Amino acid sequence: MVNAGAMSGSGNLMDFLDEPFPDVGTYEDFHTIDWLREKSRDTDRHRKITSKSKESIWEFIKSLLDAWSGWVVMLLIGLLAGTLAGVIDLAVDWMTDLKEGVCLSAFWYSHEQCCWTSNETTFEDRDKCPLWQKWSELLVNQSEGASAYILNYLMYILWALLFAFLAVSLVRVFAPYACGSGIPEIKTILSGFIIRGYLGKWTLLIKTVTLVLVVSSGLSLGKEGPLVHVACCCGNFFSSLFSKYSKNEGKRREVLSAAAAAGVSVAFGAPIGGVLFSLEESTSELISELFNDCGALESSQLCDYINDPNMTRPVDDIPDRPAGVGVYTAMWQLALALIFKIVVTIFTFGMKIPSGLFIPSMAVGAIAGRMVGIGVEQLAYHHHDWIIFRNWCRPGADCVTPGLYAMVGAAACLGGVTRMTVSLVVIMFELTGGLEYIVPLMAAAVTSKWVADAFGKEGIYEAHIHLNGYPFLDVKDEFTHRTLATDVMRPRRGEPPLSVLTQDSMTVEDVETLIKETDYNGFPVVVSRDSERLIGFAQRRELILAIKNARQRQEGIVSNSIMYFTEEPPELPANSPHPLKLRRILNLSPFTVTDHTPMETVVDIFRKLGLRQCLVTRSGRLLGIITKKDVLRHMAQMANQDPESIMFN
Amino acid sequence: MVNAGAMSGSGNLMDFLDEPFPDVGTYEDFHTIDWLREKSRDTDRHRKITSKSKESIWEFIKSLLDAWSGWVVMLLIGLLAGTLAGVIDLAVDWMTDLKEGVCLSAFWYSHEQCCWTSNETTFEDRDKCPLWQKWSELLVNQSEGASAYILNYLMYILWALLFAFLAVSLVRVFAPYACGSGIPEIKTILSGFIIRGYLGKWTLLIKTVTLVLVVSSGLSLGKEGPLVHVACCCGNFFSSLFSKYSKNEGKRREVLSAAAAAGVSVAFGAPIGGVLFSLEESTSELISELFNDCGALESSQLCDYINDPNMTRPVDDIPDRPAGVGVYTAMWQLALALIFKIVVTIFTFGMKIPSGLFIPSMAVGAIAGRMVGIGVEQLAYHHHDWIIFRNWCRPGADCVTPGLYAMVGAAACLGGVTRMTVSLVVIMFELTGGLEYIVPLMAAAVTSKWVADAFGKEGIYEAHIHLNGYPFLDVKDEFTHRTLATDVMRPRRGEPPLSVLTQDSMTVEDVETLIKETDYNGFPVVVSRDSERLIGFAQRRELILAIKNARQRQEGIVSNSIMYFTEEPPELPANSPHPLKLRRILNLSPFTVTDHTPMETVVDIFRKLGLRQCLVTRSGRLLGIITKKDVLRHMAQMANQDPESIMFN
Repeated sequence: MVNAGAMSGSGNLMDFLDEPFPDVGTYEDFHTIDWLREKSRDTDRHRKITSKSKESIWEFIKSLLDAWSGWVVMLLIGLLAGTLAGVIDLAVDWMTDLKEGVCLSAFWYSHEQCCWTSNETTFEDRDKCPLWQKWSELLVNQSEGASAYILNYLMYILWALLFAFLAVSLVRVFAPYACGSGIPEIKTILSGFIIRGYLGKWTLLIKTVTLVLVVSSGLSLGKEGPLVHVACCCGNFFSSLFSKYSKNEGKRREVLSAAAAAGVSVAFGAPIGGVLFSLEESTSELISELFNDCGALESSQLCDYINDPNMTRPVDDIPDRPAGVGVYTAMWQLALALIFKIVVTIFTFGMKIPSGLFIPSMAVGAIAGRMVGIGVEQLAYHHHDWIIFRNWCRPGADCVTPGLYAMVGAAACLGGVTRMTVSLVVIMFELTGGLEYIVPLMAAAVTSKWVADAFGKEGIYEAHIHLNGYPFLDVKDEFTHRTLATDVMRPRRGEPPLSVLTQDSMTVEDVETLIKETDYNGFPVVVSRDSERLIGFAQRRELILAIKNARQRQEGIVSNSIMYFTEEPPELPANSPHPLKLRRILNLSPFTVTDHTPMETVVDIFRKLGLRQCLVTRSGRLLGIITKKDVLRHMAQMANQDPESIMFN
Repeated sequence: MVNAGAMSGSGNLMDFLDEPFPDVGTYEDFHTIDWLREKSRDTDRHRKITSKSKESIWEFIKSLLDAWSGWVVMLLIGLLAGTLAGVIDLAVDWMTDLKEGVCLSAFWYSHEQCCWTSNETTFEDRDKCPLWQKWSELLVNQSEGASAYILNYLMYILWALLFAFLAVSLVRVFAPYACGSGIPEIKTILSGFIIRGYLGKWTLLIKTVTLVLVVSSGLSLGKEGPLVHVACCCGNFFSSLFSKYSKNEGKRREVLSAAAAAGVSVAFGAPIGGVLFSLEESTSELISELFNDCGALESSQLCDYINDPNMTRPVDDIPDRPAGVGVYTAMWQLALALIFKIVVTIFTFGMKIPSGLFIPSMAVGAIAGRMVGIGVEQLAYHHHDWIIFRNWCRPGADCVTPGLYAMVGAAACLGGVTRMTVSLVVIMFELTGGLEYIVPLMAAAVTSKWVADAFGKEGIYEAHIHLNGYPFLDVKDEFTHRTLATDVMRPRRGEPPLSVLTQDSMTVEDVETLIKETDYNGFPVVVSRDSERLIGFAQRRELILAIKNARQRQEGIVSNSIMYFTEEPPELPANSPHPLKLRRILNLSPFTVTDHTPMETVVDIFRKLGLRQCLVTRSGRLLGIITKKDVLRHMAQMANQDPESIMFN
């Protein structure tokens, strides 16, 4: 830990008193990092390594290793995240089948693996190999009949309940941070917030295990969001192995955002073009069936149309046909499924288990879209003389494709939930594999965003961030009110004056009292209480550490010692105790705005520069301070929300 | 123009003296805009419209129209840019054919259009319809023989020279800004620079006409970059029709960046997936031929392989074959073409004509790639027992595809020229239409960027920006030096002190003298020369306008009048002339940093907030000023470049 300080130091190392002490430059839990400082600390570090690299071969090799460490970390993250995703998939396959039965040759085989080596080679019997035993066969030696059916059903329910119960307990006892999709927290962490343990090893382990459990149990949830969280945990683990990343919260976030991208890749099988595979492979057969075009060979209930035997046509150009009994049955089943899926998804997403909502919300939209599609198709078939159908829905023409309606519905629903537009169209474009549907999908994405925005501007992830009170400044949020910095800064009118330090007239005891009596994260340092001219800013955490360190290691530092932030010690009476120099912990370039600065500009500055706090001055005099929390509270207030909903700084 | 001022005002409109005057809020040519100010002016405007919209139905409709004007502008830009691109394509077709001959039925028909209606229906004769006459047929009634050939050749050269000469003259005389691709200037303009006329109507007209001329003349250039410029000119034209955009340089740039995107779309036929179409359609048959896989039906020289008659295989799985005579001939032709294309492209891009280098650089890369591809293929065929070939290049296997080598080469060359990576892979992914080649293309993009970066960090567009001395702060530029604001600010040590205004003690004449004697863009306003405590910043342009306006319209304003920036007039002796209040033009929230701020942070602030200038203070006292030009010069100096290469502010 001593190295941590040494790495962050940038001043004159010859001066013992100026030497940094342990833990300088770290942050407390639930605090926001200072991006500018992290960046300049990394530049210092880089500069030091570069200048050292000319000294010896060994230092040169070290500098090369340092330059390549980013690639190494990313390779390791990719490997681990990919492995975990693969293991999760295999485990889910096995446990999903375990709800139905067990493989006699090796209990860790899934149904498919079990029958793979079986001798039954005909297509129909592939699912019924003798090595795979349903629970009824295994327990009461019955494979047919009502009692076997009921027993199998009960076992199925039992396993599902067991998995779900196990998942809930594991999350509750070992890693509360493993619940949910993790996306809102990861967005907040990437923006510069500290949540210790959120990306920890326990979270990684428990989230991986419970994700398998909840997916196998058959709950209405997706594994895409949780896989992004898992990949970020991997990123955090590997970045903790390299001091370049572990000791700089800014650099660590670079690795984390790349890890999040890797997570998206493993979740969908590939960076682009992967969604299609994952849909076909997994947790979502329902969706692929709903997207189906009902070619001539389809046997699904949804494709039970009455074909005209007189018409011979190529397989891929299916005319509109009247619906058969199966389609009508499917319609009310879809209606029931729609209601059920909406309700179940809402409740599932609120539960304390790992859960993503990408696939469930696409399923909801696809069901609704398919229903509309079948409706329009039958309307067009039976009323092809209506004005809207007249020109392109002649009998025998292929004018309405219910599968496309399902795609548009899925895009619209996912868009409404997450408020994605461009990335949504890209995903759906990859999903459908062609450019022909891009216009309806774009229209769906934009319309769903408009409609959803009318109910509230926040997507579900932003809403979750808001619910949890995290300090997150969204790039998309527009602040258009006319308030000024003076309206937001503290102290407000009537409040006690701002707690400041003077540059060379307070004793150690004065400062310790100030620290004890307030809980501010830092204190502006001024020339004197009279002039109130600002010279810098000192962090609370570093003040405490510096004083503790000086009292232990420096002789002559007592409660009466004068603390000074200037280059030279102040002139003191002859008998005064040894003064304490604290210039090293003074930030000499605190960010300032004038009291007349529009809040619009202040919000912009906080957002773009990633500030923690900003001091307010008028004609060079210090007036007050604005923290990120103050900005967010003010924004909440202006948007008629409860400012107390912003909980952290 | 009076409205312009009224729109930009935000203060108390009841006070006559506070009323804004014409031209406030505009910028001079070759100056940088102030993004924060433009943004807050637009917020004011929006707020005014919103509050007015509650007053009457008419105002409500006006506010709706205002909200929709962005969509209208974009629709108009899309329509005009698309139309122009179509017209350019048609004109290029016609004029390219004009070099060979003319259509007798209607001279404005291209070869293809001319023969469209011809009666010759056999495939071979389609190109030889009687209505289409080559120049030799038309002028000397000869269609065959050496003299006809020479005459046609001369006419071809003559037309090409004529087109090129016409293009150069038009650009030179009417619109010098129409030359080049326009991308470097558009990047600079989008970043906030003013170049009057660069996106004007004359530039639009001349660039469109000359683009047709140079493309038809057959020069080695692409029309993609110039089409982006044309679309931006359309954007500028339509945004000048709506006061929301014409009177706010920040909002105008929003339209311009959308117009640039529209330009990319029309240049490539479609936003995504369009490159393929444009390659097949146009200016680049060479490239599609080089990308070719040499299926069984190809008759090109490049595909002259010796087929094994004993081997029957599906058409799309072609084994490696020994090269025929045609391939060997093609190889040295390709080598010659490579050298010629490189030289010609370099010279063409430096000429004062509209010219893009997307297609030419892809062609260069594709030629080189195809040559390497054929080489490796033949090596693999003849030496399939070598270690690197042994496992996958058995005789009869399809292991080397020269077409893929051409694609990778094209991507690498384009990547080296422009330093694109992600967008390049997307373009090539669209171009090749499949995911199978994405890994070699990614590797090519990254490798070419590394190799090119070793020669110099700038892509061709950044290099052009640099050559022209535009003030462009690249987001990708890293500033890692250890200098502080105090090292960069002016005045430097030994220079005369900073020119400042005092808040209430200078006369109109004092200020006029200061303006005459200096050419600064603005002046900091301080409490007094002794205290040097900063209260705000006044723009030179607005000072001049305000004084001129006051002298004309306000009674009692003479050279001896005291100018004051405070709320209340200063106490003056009884006989003093009427003082002049200038608080309206005072920016009360100038951006300040302390002298100890690392330049790394200052560069970040300039880049992210789009500042024009920043004042430097220490303990509340004004020390100096840093402009964007100072920052860029300092960056140039630190990178061992000539700081004088930065020409504009």
